[in-house]
Amino acid sequence: MPNGDAKKSVKKVVLAYSGGLDTSIILKWLQTTYGCEVVTFTADLGQGEELGPAREKALRAGIKPENIFIEDLREEFVRDFVNPMFRANTVYEGQYLLGTSIARPLIAKKQIEIARKVGADAVCHGATGKGNDQVRFELSYYALEPSIKIIAPWREWTFKGREELLKFARDHQITITKDKEGEAPFSVDANLLHSSSEGKVLEDPAKEAPGIVYQRTISPMDAPDQPTEITIGFKKGDAVSLNGEAMSPATLLARLNDLGKANGIGRLDLVENRFVGMKSRGVYETPGGTILLQAHRAIESITLDRGAGHLKDELMPRYAEMIYNGFWFTPEREMLQALIDKSQEMVEGEVRLKLYKGNVIVTGRESPASLYSSTLVTFEDDKGAYDQKDAEGFIRLNALRLRTLGQRNKKLNG
Amino acid sequence: MPNGDAKKSVKKVVLAYSGGLDTSIILKWLQTTYGCEVVTFTADLGQGEELGPAREKALRAGIKPENIFIEDLREEFVRDFVNPMFRANTVYEGQYLLGTSIARPLIAKKQIEIARKVGADAVCHGATGKGNDQVRFELSYYALEPSIKIIAPWREWTFKGREELLKFARDHQITITKDKEGEAPFSVDANLLHSSSEGKVLEDPAKEAPGIVYQRTISPMDAPDQPTEITIGFKKGDAVSLNGEAMSPATLLARLNDLGKANGIGRLDLVENRFVGMKSRGVYETPGGTILLQAHRAIESITLDRGAGHLKDELMPRYAEMIYNGFWFTPEREMLQALIDKSQEMVEGEVRLKLYKGNVIVTGRESPASLYSSTLVTFEDDKGAYDQKDAEGFIRLNALRLRTLGQRNKKLNG
Amino acid sequence: MPNGDAKKSVKKVVLAYSGGLDTSIILKWLQTTYGCEVVTFTADLGQGEELGPAREKALRAGIKPENIFIEDLREEFVRDFVNPMFRANTVYEGQYLLGTSIARPLIAKKQIEIARKVGADAVCHGATGKGNDQVRFELSYYALEPSIKIIAPWREWTFKGREELLKFARDHQITITKDKEGEAPFSVDANLLHSSSEGKVLEDPAKEAPGIVYQRTISPMDAPDQPTEITIGFKKGDAVSLNGEAMSPATLLARLNDLGKANGIGRLDLVENRFVGMKSRGVYETPGGTILLQAHRAIESITLDRGAGHLKDELMPRYAEMIYNGFWFTPEREMLQALIDKSQEMVEGEVRLKLYKGNVIVTGRESPASLYSSTLVTFEDDKGAYDQKDAEGFIRLNALRLRTLGQRNKKLNG
Amino acid sequence: MPNGDAKKSVKKVVLAYSGGLDTSIILKWLQTTYGCEVVTFTADLGQGEELGPAREKALRAGIKPENIFIEDLREEFVRDFVNPMFRANTVYEGQYLLGTSIARPLIAKKQIEIARKVGADAVCHGATGKGNDQVRFELSYYALEPSIKIIAPWREWTFKGREELLKFARDHQITITKDKEGEAPFSVDANLLHSSSEGKVLEDPAKEAPGIVYQRTISPMDAPDQPTEITIGFKKGDAVSLNGEAMSPATLLARLNDLGKANGIGRLDLVENRFVGMKSRGVYETPGGTILLQAHRAIESITLDRGAGHLKDELMPRYAEMIYNGFWFTPEREMLQALIDKSQEMVEGEVRLKLYKGNVIVTGRESPASLYSSTLVTFEDDKGAYDQKDAEGFIRLNALRLRTLGQRNKKLNG
Repeated sequence: MPNGDAKKSVKKVVLAYSGGLDTSIILKWLQTTYGCEVVTFTADLGQGEELGPAREKALRAGIKPENIFIEDLREEFVRDFVNPMFRANTVYEGQYLLGTSIARPLIAKKQIEIARKVGADAVCHGATGKGNDQVRFELSYYALEPSIKIIAPWREWTFKGREELLKFARDHQITITKDKEGEAPFSVDANLLHSSSEGKVLEDPAKEAPGIVYQRTISPMDAPDQPTEITIGFKKGDAVSLNGEAMSPATLLARLNDLGKANGIGRLDLVENRFVGMKSRGVYETPGGTILLQAHRAIESITLDRGAGHLKDELMPRYAEMIYNGFWFTPEREMLQALIDKSQEMVEGEVRLKLYKGNVIVTGRESPASLYSSTLVTFEDDKGAYDQKDAEGFIRLNALRLRTLGQRNKKLNG
Repeated sequence: MPNGDAKKSVKKVVLAYSGGLDTSIILKWLQTTYGCEVVTFTADLGQGEELGPAREKALRAGIKPENIFIEDLREEFVRDFVNPMFRANTVYEGQYLLGTSIARPLIAKKQIEIARKVGADAVCHGATGKGNDQVRFELSYYALEPSIKIIAPWREWTFKGREELLKFARDHQITITKDKEGEAPFSVDANLLHSSSEGKVLEDPAKEAPGIVYQRTISPMDAPDQPTEITIGFKKGDAVSLNGEAMSPATLLARLNDLGKANGIGRLDLVENRFVGMKSRGVYETPGGTILLQAHRAIESITLDRGAGHLKDELMPRYAEMIYNGFWFTPEREMLQALIDKSQEMVEGEVRLKLYKGNVIVTGRESPASLYSSTLVTFEDDKGAYDQKDAEGFIRLNALRLRTLGQRNKKLNG
Repeated sequence: MPNGDAKKSVKKVVLAYSGGLDTSIILKWLQTTYGCEVVTFTADLGQGEELGPAREKALRAGIKPENIFIEDLREEFVRDFVNPMFRANTVYEGQYLLGTSIARPLIAKKQIEIARKVGADAVCHGATGKGNDQVRFELSYYALEPSIKIIAPWREWTFKGREELLKFARDHQITITKDKEGEAPFSVDANLLHSSSEGKVLEDPAKEAPGIVYQRTISPMDAPDQPTEITIGFKKGDAVSLNGEAMSPATLLARLNDLGKANGIGRLDLVENRFVGMKSRGVYETPGGTILLQAHRAIESITLDRGAGHLKDELMPRYAEMIYNGFWFTPEREMLQALIDKSQEMVEGEVRLKLYKGNVIVTGRESPASLYSSTLVTFEDDKGAYDQKDAEGFIRLNALRLRTLGQRNKKLNG
Repeated sequence: MPNGDAKKSVKKVVLAYSGGLDTSIILKWLQTTYGCEVVTFTADLGQGEELGPAREKALRAGIKPENIFIEDLREEFVRDFVNPMFRANTVYEGQYLLGTSIARPLIAKKQIEIARKVGADAVCHGATGKGNDQVRFELSYYALEPSIKIIAPWREWTFKGREELLKFARDHQITITKDKEGEAPFSVDANLLHSSSEGKVLEDPAKEAPGIVYQRTISPMDAPDQPTEITIGFKKGDAVSLNGEAMSPATLLARLNDLGKANGIGRLDLVENRFVGMKSRGVYETPGGTILLQAHRAIESITLDRGAGHLKDELMPRYAEMIYNGFWFTPEREMLQALIDKSQEMVEGEVRLKLYKGNVIVTGRESPASLYSSTLVTFEDDKGAYDQKDAEGFIRLNALRLRTLGQRNKKLNG
């Protein structure tokens, strides 16, 4: 399935529909190729676009009103996807904050829910055949609804190049805004956590990314000459307040985005390894997320036990890989999540930071649940909290196997 | 051993001797308490102090000329310790570049070598009983010379507080420079990789570190308004050139330190977990190392295969923990090193960076050994390099177990 | 604390008391050395000894009736310690089923509970200074009651050798049974999960363990010539029934012990690495546990998803190490437990086994929650459940990075 | 590639050819479908079949003599594949000794070598589209020769069921031995390490495997009533002698197979997770390997340091997964191999075992490189080798973080 005559068998399909040119073409292509009823799903994940036009466009494309679904998912996105991920200080390949990866499972989940509601037998996404997003969408679809049919137009249709696509659009009265007429100089994805840019002018990793690529942050060089000081409050590992004011998850992230943007924070230019096997170069902007990561590490630094912290750190790369590769709705991700969440029960308190021209500088952390003890650590008299004599035995038993080894090697090697 | 009357049995001890007040007191204490011959070992690890005075002070303290050892270890330090560690992109607890940790095994190794040369039966270090350094020194001593005797004065002597220590110094004609008379506001360790500050004014992690703590970097706020552009060349995972000029390991790191310092790069203020069980707050400055880490990640990003990179990333926290805890001379560290080194054979090429007010910005990477293929990744016609149809099978077989799982759960849960 | 005059400060101590010779000596030693009130705690963990005599002996030693605590912990032991551990298929160093390790945290927990109840300020155990058990007891004590005082007589007293100990016993009218007069040929620990033997005749790992060491199993050579067939039922990863009959955790394990014993199952002779740094040789008998491990693996084999199973398998050695080293009451163990337990929700069904002369042979597994699909796997017509064409894309994308790598290496190496 | 008209482009193909019915059909199908020159490669991996007939059959099928390659790979197989794998005590999913998986990369490597020698542009294997072997072959092909064309007949041809295949055979004068006429009751793979059986009568995992499935071992019930005692010698982690007699790798494994077979050792009936996504049930017989695994663990138990052993144990499941999934020729496998091999440098000595009715019982281990010290471990006077006082400090510092945690939790939770 979807190959050969299987195409004919789709009755109703739920399309992830942004209202933009590409998904408008897909919508029309579904109607003309599959001849099936199309249900559109448009989500607000904080990408910064109006959703109203999507409804109008869908209606104009002949979608029945009851088949148009538009949802504001911002709070759910941050609460159930972004926040759980940040509890693990998650970065892919040491750097990438997974802004695109973490949004895909939520969109897929909603498509499946709508498919069930409207009795659709198929879902459709607009991701290309070379990227990770197709995998993330489809693994999620299959995990949630094993018998769903999946339509991946970019892998199926026979358009050769952009020109044929645009011709199809014109032939079907799809509006093409002026800036889409030519070749876009790069490709963009955005949501409340980040925006990413890939392709075209970015394809040579030896060349610096041009300034026009950046959309969500100003350059550190253009940022204010004075630092901005903020305080982030945490509860159970999640950020819950900014400068003492409690906020909903999405509100807080949006505010951090504003702060990050204004201070040139969160730009990242890297070459990463895709799950489908090739390297790609991307430019990411994650202003709020970059602040959040530093702040979360800082609050953990005083509230998380070493054993807990090190175990999390060791498992994080695996967890990041699962999210990057699209395995969100899997037993192994849920197992790791259970482990991570268990560690966060007492991760609470406040972190003070300075934001300055691309820098996120931790200047203070405090917590009622702090494990830091100045009494223990002090060079001054600690009143017996720590007996330095203990260190000798500690070292000697840690060394015992190494001494045995040293003796053995000496004996054998002379 | 060293307890009770065992003290009397030491004949000759090799002391890690900086020539500063503390190790001068230790030297005298060894002579008066153990009544043994003292051999001093003073190393230049790039801490930025003259070694000449150490010789004079040792002579004045009655050390025989043949018992005074002074060595410039800077190249060995970077080549055999710092560089191998950076091959793994090593950071402890997500952030700390291990500047102090990585120097200890080398000092210990040299002390043992000298002990063998001069026939000493003991070694002595000046680390306190609360910190990690005692562990790092002593595990290294024991691993390299299982039957060595270890003297750890800070755990043994009975001075109560700083005042008694200073009195002992005065009683024994040890020069006390003016700034040591009072309580130092914090404690410092330095070498070519970093300097660290701990204690006193830093003991409250809720309070920002005062500016005087920073010694090796200027503030990002004081750094130039224009970025500095540099190029670092790599070979087998190690930095080998700067702006096209080949340099020895220590020279290169020193140059990166200058560049980092001037651009406000490499400051870190954190709370970490010590091996001996408590949390401590430290301020680290690693200007060159911070640049190096970014550059190394960048050159790996185009030359290292995903399988290799992810395996390294997953094992890095463990490797960092070994170094932090002092287990450098152990089979497990050597096993991980073998794995890491194996991965670096083709990690070569050049990375371009902008240094700007605390930011290290990668702007380009290129390599004859690059695995990046713009042909594979392009949105344009790739001439068959990648068949998008392959993605369907790839996804479907990755999804198969998830679909089976979904069906099972559906069947059972209704 | 417990050194020097600290000894005088103990008011009331809860002693883990078996009623045997060693803990009777400790009881008396506590009374004479610390002059404190002693509370005895005697637990039935299935070690196979009567508890009645312990009460009488305690009374005879002058313990007040209200200070004598005797508890049957068998069900709690299996339900809250053994079963959670078996959910992970836990073995230490590839083989050891951790029978001793897993009992210590429970005993420690009960001692602390009693200490709170009776207002004791100290606890005491009878483990020696060379073994792992002292660590397991004391880490558990400290984790549960950070300010508790710990008395470890074997590390404190000054008896030199067995003869002095026996003299102390005789001097204090402690009954010494005949078999204790001489040197026992080995040392034994036992509970419902296993018995272990160490020391003396077992100290040379080159020599076969003599038959008298084995106490809980007959030799495979003496076992019946016909196999015994059994069926074990599982629910949420725990064994809940035997041959169709539902049983409590401890009852079931006891029955499996009988079956294992009769069929020569569960003997293990190995050299292991102790946490305190040396290697030791032990002989373990875990008849029921050995059967349980095989059965649990078998039920998992059809009900656990690959992703879940492989993640568990990779983390198991770490989990085993935590238990072996005594870190049961730690955040990291609880985090791993959360992960493991999450995986077991659907691990249910029945496993059939043949027990025969030391062999545990799985002959069948079935489950309503089975993920095994003969339709998928069959060589016959699978009616479209699996499209063999998918494999090509699956392989090609898995191979993509390897091909890129091969091309790079070819280009560079000629 | 191999799709559509690509088929026509193959000029010369190297076929992994056993001379059996299936690969004879493939040979003919290649000739008739691709019209290309066929080169046959037949390897002796210890599967226990004569290779002579393969040559005759190939000649009869019209293969030119210079295109017939027959090689005895037994020594290379054990030396370069089996032994390196056993150094890690490798088992997949806790039990499977990977007998099939480890042979595939070697066959693939030889096919590629021959392809280069004869100038072939394609290779071909006889693995089905549902199994792991296709992946193992093809990943190896691609890794070693990125531009090779791969023909996988079972995924390509259009035969519907066994009857059509046999008709094709008859139509092309391929001899069909009597036992191949009907449906074989299960499918078999064999080499010097193991034989495996799958499918048909084994497809229901609830049913016991019938006796006829077992080919390489007698039943434990039929094995001798007296144990056989043997001694295996190791050097650098590899078995090098049996009962004191030095032997080549393949000879030694063959001898262990005989011993295992005669004593009913090495049978395994399990359900495993295939890389392609489904569960399958297999019966494996690995008589020599099962003995070897126990013996290797035993020699490691006295010669391998704890740090080394635990690190290996934790990484083993990942290493096993790589081999099972076919990623032998990958950087990550080679990195792990470097780590494993590093650990084996001093793994040498002798292990004594009793083989008895399915049991492999270790009865002794000794080594000049032993790390076991009876002086350290003894309950008797150890003459100061171990100071029991050290344990207190060791425990107290290990407990420090747990006590801090306990205090924090107490303070917060009342």
